[in-house]
Amino acid sequence: MRARDLAEPYPVVSLDDQALDAASLLAEHRLPGILVVDSADVPVAVLPGSQLVRLLVPGYVMEDPTLAAVIDEAHADRLCAALTDLRVRDCLPADAPAPTVARADDTAMEIAALMARAHSPLVAVVDHPAGRHATGGGRLLGVITASHLLHRLLGNP
Amino acid sequence: MRARDLAEPYPVVSLDDQALDAASLLAEHRLPGILVVDSADVPVAVLPGSQLVRLLVPGYVMEDPTLAAVIDEAHADRLCAALTDLRVRDCLPADAPAPTVARADDTAMEIAALMARAHSPLVAVVDHPAGRHATGGGRLLGVITASHLLHRLLGNP
Repeated sequence: MRARDLAEPYPVVSLDDQALDAASLLAEHRLPGILVVDSADVPVAVLPGSQLVRLLVPGYVMEDPTLAAVIDEAHADRLCAALTDLRVRDCLPADAPAPTVARADDTAMEIAALMARAHSPLVAVVDHPAGRHATGGGRLLGVITASHLLHRLLGNP
Repeated sequence: MRARDLAEPYPVVSLDDQALDAASLLAEHRLPGILVVDSADVPVAVLPGSQLVRLLVPGYVMEDPTLAAVIDEAHADRLCAALTDLRVRDCLPADAPAPTVARADDTAMEIAALMARAHSPLVAVVDHPAGRHATGGGRLLGVITASHLLHRLLGNP
């Protein structure tokens, strides 16, 4: 069981996609985060759903959460307007960690170790044109989530 | 739009449930993590899928990931055996953060602020018999994930 056999298709967005489209994809597919790729289809980041939600919250509420309660309830319908005109690249925190990346011929144990060390709910699987020991830079083949890895290791096809 | 209207049913496990059952639930429902409740149905932790995967990885591989590659590939089928005889309480890291908890009458903005501040992909919604300003201790009414909150804020029913 190698990474290439475990990788599944997974929704991705590019750095220049609209933030609202990223939010819609994440909402539609019920994802904890969405994978961001560059123009060469190389994974560059994971944008967590909680980070998109973060962008809906005004700065003064982040500083003083009690102020959230005084915001007019009717405003809820307009919360997502905060994402209008933002691109995915604008939503990534400055300290966004690089995505966890596995190579196509990594074993189940190598993937588990990568995921465990990064505390990451997903690993991007890339081809590895730059050689077995190159890190990053490969094109995306698919994604392995923690739940899918457990699914397969529990003996499901 | 209040927390009670946004909360959805979500799979939970108790501290004394089998770890293998938690892994199966997580795998079946494709969850990034599973909510752990105590015997009074009070949320006590979130057990991330990556933490269950962590338990499959021998200590010597966590210390030296290059050793993962030398483990017999046939061993993959037996990886989940590491979870046998473990209870959910044995799987929680000692420093597992308390789950992010909202009260039934919290507004969408309050939930967004909670989620953003905790960088949490899910918020547990509880009733609040101990009063509006009590934290924790309430019984679970349901869960709001970041993706579901975005789904509803984007105007979906």
